[in-house]
Amino acid sequence: MPYSPPLQDLAFALDTMAGLSRLEGLDGLEAHDPDLVAPILEEAGKLARDVLAPLNQQGDRAGAQLGEEGVIAAPGFAEAYAAFRDGGWMGLAFPEEWGGQGLPKALALAVMEMVHGANMAFGLCPLLSFGAIEALLAHGTDAQKQTYLPQLVSGNWTGTMNLTEPQAGSDVGALTTKAVPNGDGSYAITGQKIYITWGDHDVAENIVHLVLARLPDAPEGSRGVSLFIAPKFLVNADGSLGDRNGVKCIGLEEKLGIHASPTCVMEFDGATGWLVGEPNKGLACMFTMMNSARLNVGLEGVSIGEAAYQTAHEYASDRKQGRATGVDGPAPIIHHPDVRRNLVTMRARTMAARAICLACGVAADLAEHGPDETTRAAARLREDLLTPIAKAWSTDMGVEMASLGVQIHGGMGFMNETLAAQLYKDARILPIYEGTNGIQAIDLAGRKLALGNGQAMADMLAEITETAKLARESNEPDFVAIADRLDAAAAALEDATGWMVETMKSDRNTALGGATAYLALAGDVIGGHFLTRGALGARTGHADAMFAQMQALATFFAETDLAEAPARVPGIVEGGEVLARLGDGALG
Amino acid sequence: MPYSPPLQDLAFALDTMAGLSRLEGLDGLEAHDPDLVAPILEEAGKLARDVLAPLNQQGDRAGAQLGEEGVIAAPGFAEAYAAFRDGGWMGLAFPEEWGGQGLPKALALAVMEMVHGANMAFGLCPLLSFGAIEALLAHGTDAQKQTYLPQLVSGNWTGTMNLTEPQAGSDVGALTTKAVPNGDGSYAITGQKIYITWGDHDVAENIVHLVLARLPDAPEGSRGVSLFIAPKFLVNADGSLGDRNGVKCIGLEEKLGIHASPTCVMEFDGATGWLVGEPNKGLACMFTMMNSARLNVGLEGVSIGEAAYQTAHEYASDRKQGRATGVDGPAPIIHHPDVRRNLVTMRARTMAARAICLACGVAADLAEHGPDETTRAAARLREDLLTPIAKAWSTDMGVEMASLGVQIHGGMGFMNETLAAQLYKDARILPIYEGTNGIQAIDLAGRKLALGNGQAMADMLAEITETAKLARESNEPDFVAIADRLDAAAAALEDATGWMVETMKSDRNTALGGATAYLALAGDVIGGHFLTRGALGARTGHADAMFAQMQALATFFAETDLAEAPARVPGIVEGGEVLARLGDGALG
Repeated sequence: MPYSPPLQDLAFALDTMAGLSRLEGLDGLEAHDPDLVAPILEEAGKLARDVLAPLNQQGDRAGAQLGEEGVIAAPGFAEAYAAFRDGGWMGLAFPEEWGGQGLPKALALAVMEMVHGANMAFGLCPLLSFGAIEALLAHGTDAQKQTYLPQLVSGNWTGTMNLTEPQAGSDVGALTTKAVPNGDGSYAITGQKIYITWGDHDVAENIVHLVLARLPDAPEGSRGVSLFIAPKFLVNADGSLGDRNGVKCIGLEEKLGIHASPTCVMEFDGATGWLVGEPNKGLACMFTMMNSARLNVGLEGVSIGEAAYQTAHEYASDRKQGRATGVDGPAPIIHHPDVRRNLVTMRARTMAARAICLACGVAADLAEHGPDETTRAAARLREDLLTPIAKAWSTDMGVEMASLGVQIHGGMGFMNETLAAQLYKDARILPIYEGTNGIQAIDLAGRKLALGNGQAMADMLAEITETAKLARESNEPDFVAIADRLDAAAAALEDATGWMVETMKSDRNTALGGATAYLALAGDVIGGHFLTRGALGARTGHADAMFAQMQALATFFAETDLAEAPARVPGIVEGGEVLARLGDGALG
Repeated sequence: MPYSPPLQDLAFALDTMAGLSRLEGLDGLEAHDPDLVAPILEEAGKLARDVLAPLNQQGDRAGAQLGEEGVIAAPGFAEAYAAFRDGGWMGLAFPEEWGGQGLPKALALAVMEMVHGANMAFGLCPLLSFGAIEALLAHGTDAQKQTYLPQLVSGNWTGTMNLTEPQAGSDVGALTTKAVPNGDGSYAITGQKIYITWGDHDVAENIVHLVLARLPDAPEGSRGVSLFIAPKFLVNADGSLGDRNGVKCIGLEEKLGIHASPTCVMEFDGATGWLVGEPNKGLACMFTMMNSARLNVGLEGVSIGEAAYQTAHEYASDRKQGRATGVDGPAPIIHHPDVRRNLVTMRARTMAARAICLACGVAADLAEHGPDETTRAAARLREDLLTPIAKAWSTDMGVEMASLGVQIHGGMGFMNETLAAQLYKDARILPIYEGTNGIQAIDLAGRKLALGNGQAMADMLAEITETAKLARESNEPDFVAIADRLDAAAAALEDATGWMVETMKSDRNTALGGATAYLALAGDVIGGHFLTRGALGARTGHADAMFAQMQALATFFAETDLAEAPARVPGIVEGGEVLARLGDGALG
């Protein structure tokens, strides 16, 4: 089925939920013109619908292949990448200095939601380039920037992140890849990396590998990790491509899904590389890449949720089974209450996750371009807080929505020919890569809550309470009901936050036992906040239908997810404590 | 990895949670000897571990194939079926009169949990035979019984259920397959059936198809559906096999999972068949098959949950990443609190679902063999009530646990080589077939709650309250805490039940909008009741370790799932009402 770019929802989420207007007129974002948002989204939507979506299922069936000369992308992907590159989409949110368009990250996220929604296996290629560009912008030398950034930002070359080794996944500090000085400022990198997304391919003329490795005298663990840059083809002084570097793909993983995204085993055999950033500070550089990638992966959850909704909605509108109230003759199953419930659930949660991800993007833009340090610092806290929630909550949601999408298809959903089945398989990587959702929960509970002495969550809670106040002051019964749920949910999140912060100090293990449940609660409450804000904002300046939709979604979410929030505190607090005193008993 | 038969858990669940002892000394169950339960489970466990489990992943890769002569099972499956048949496992719970062993259905369920846990694609073959046997026992003529039952009960022949047609899935009444009288008491059946599990294969010498079709003068819709029996090979008067009948497999579906279970498109081209039961009463006969199949499918959810737990537990015990409290050097990830939480969640929910399914089996046995009509009637109500919950709650649980199992494996879980990935794919059919879980929710809310004027749920709630009382009277703090949660959860279920029953009368559409959420709540509360009963029962006559385990699981479940129960009532009540007044607004 054709992918239908959710242009109206994206524009609404950017404006009314995520606060895009805060980015107008900022230094460094001079190119951002609110009037251009809609045309840009429309143009990206055409690419997604007309070029990328038609390749999605055939790419899944064909997969990427490893040939003699390296990895060959699935049929049509090279041409699609050329269209993506030539459209200038890679550089949308990067500085004009390096050939980008200097537009907000939040807008690039909205564009990428459509790219991933149409074809997630394809979207992973630019996703990894984004990370490489961010790392070079933040940590590269001037020479490195000049050599690589124009080519990456234009999309002529693509980037990769080489972190994982067989024994070093979540525990990055356990990696053993070596980097030995060549005496000329370069290093010889030797080791094996696994799970390298788009690690090799034939859709761009060069690939820029960012690689974590150890210097000869490096301390053990994560404090002895450095970041290097090692291109597939060495770059001559005039910028032309030179010799093939000593790095190649020696195997492709057979995966559950995203078959058109090559997941490579990469062998570095004395590959020539250069240090990026300070020696032994690779982990900090890695987090520059990872934070960008985490938000973008969260967004992939939104994309999967939207695509699953679209295909389920279409199927439910066509498929007739049984009778339904108000329908003559056999009824399309969308008229059966249970099917409607599943569809409304999908739409509400997808919209909530979209708002969280785009708001995180706006925070990232403000953190960089905000008018004053106070604004920038507050935005940085907001970005830090929302990143693990955007990643974990949105991707857990994506998996659940893909599963609901299969369910709405009935027996047909279990057939390989349906997009619903592909989305169910593709989605499952999302809670795993770029830091498992368990790692995100630890990041949120163990690190982000403590930032600025708890200011990040305190600010968020104040904003949620303000939203509830606005809903209550409307004096409209539906909004007052939402306000009640939102207030109670915010109070529950505040309680759970207090417990988490205190317990993290006194008994970290117990606290961590509740971390995943805490993140889920935080996502629900913040998601409900954004849906409510959207519904309130839709009252003026929007079509009646849009207001009716947004109010319905906010109400449904309030009576389901938000209503459950207070009762989830025991699962965090007592759940964590029960786990801590269980020992191995329950796992016998 | 090897499948480890959960012998201890199964024996415990049968005895202490499901009440197997109530079946001792009953007429018709004379063969049931409590001392033989453990040896029988052990023997079945060997078959599952040594014969079936080794074929599971290779069967998934090879799949069943359609050849010139029909369907060829995956390599090794014919030999495995012979071992299953020769072990007498098919007839375990069927009457000795027909060659069975006359043992309780609950015991056969425990055996089948291991069969499915080791290899669900294989287990589907006997699962369908069970349904065919039940249908013939209840509705077959003497001649039909004598011709088919000994061969089905021995496992020499297998059975199938031919219900679905392209336009007739959940809406069985829309089917168009015709049965025209041949004038000799037989009928010529013509039509196409889809999604026919093990519809053809080469592992048994004959296949007995039970087929829904329409007589020439049949009324429209579900009141014009009749059940027929049509074997693959016609049976001569002396019982030997005669001519090939006019029915064959004309296609195999390409599915998301269970690749070793052939899902057939069956073409009936004037196939000779005979009426089973009354004309136009096929739907009632179908439900005899379906009820057996629904409980067995629920059990498959338990099997998947257990298998996913085992493989995740093994991986988490081996895989080392990072440091953990109390462990020197790199720690197996099972020591990380978040991983532990996932494992405990898997174990608690699997055990709860196991108890629900086995208790439903005991109820089915009592409904048939209970000492007096009062007992039988009460048991029949319990079986009726628990069947949709066993089917839907256990299979939703199975999908979730398979997903958690992938998550615990990290990146490795997304590799096709891991059993975790296979379980994730296999599990997804469970909420769909034998009546989607949405259909189960309608059955529970729309039909089962009304049976006996609401007696079924009233009896269940009384039993739950009794369990809470016993927990409270123990005066042990952990049990008192559980009692609080269980009482509150039971009160919530009672509230929701009252709303559902009343609303079903006044506004069926609104009620049905809350049906799935209602079933989920009922499963949680009943699951918590069984876990609590298990923990209480484990205090005496069981090893300390078993008691510690069961109490830990009950406590964890109480503080998570049960604690949430009261807050889920709005999602049923208000959720249903919001949906009803939404119109199409939220789905724009």
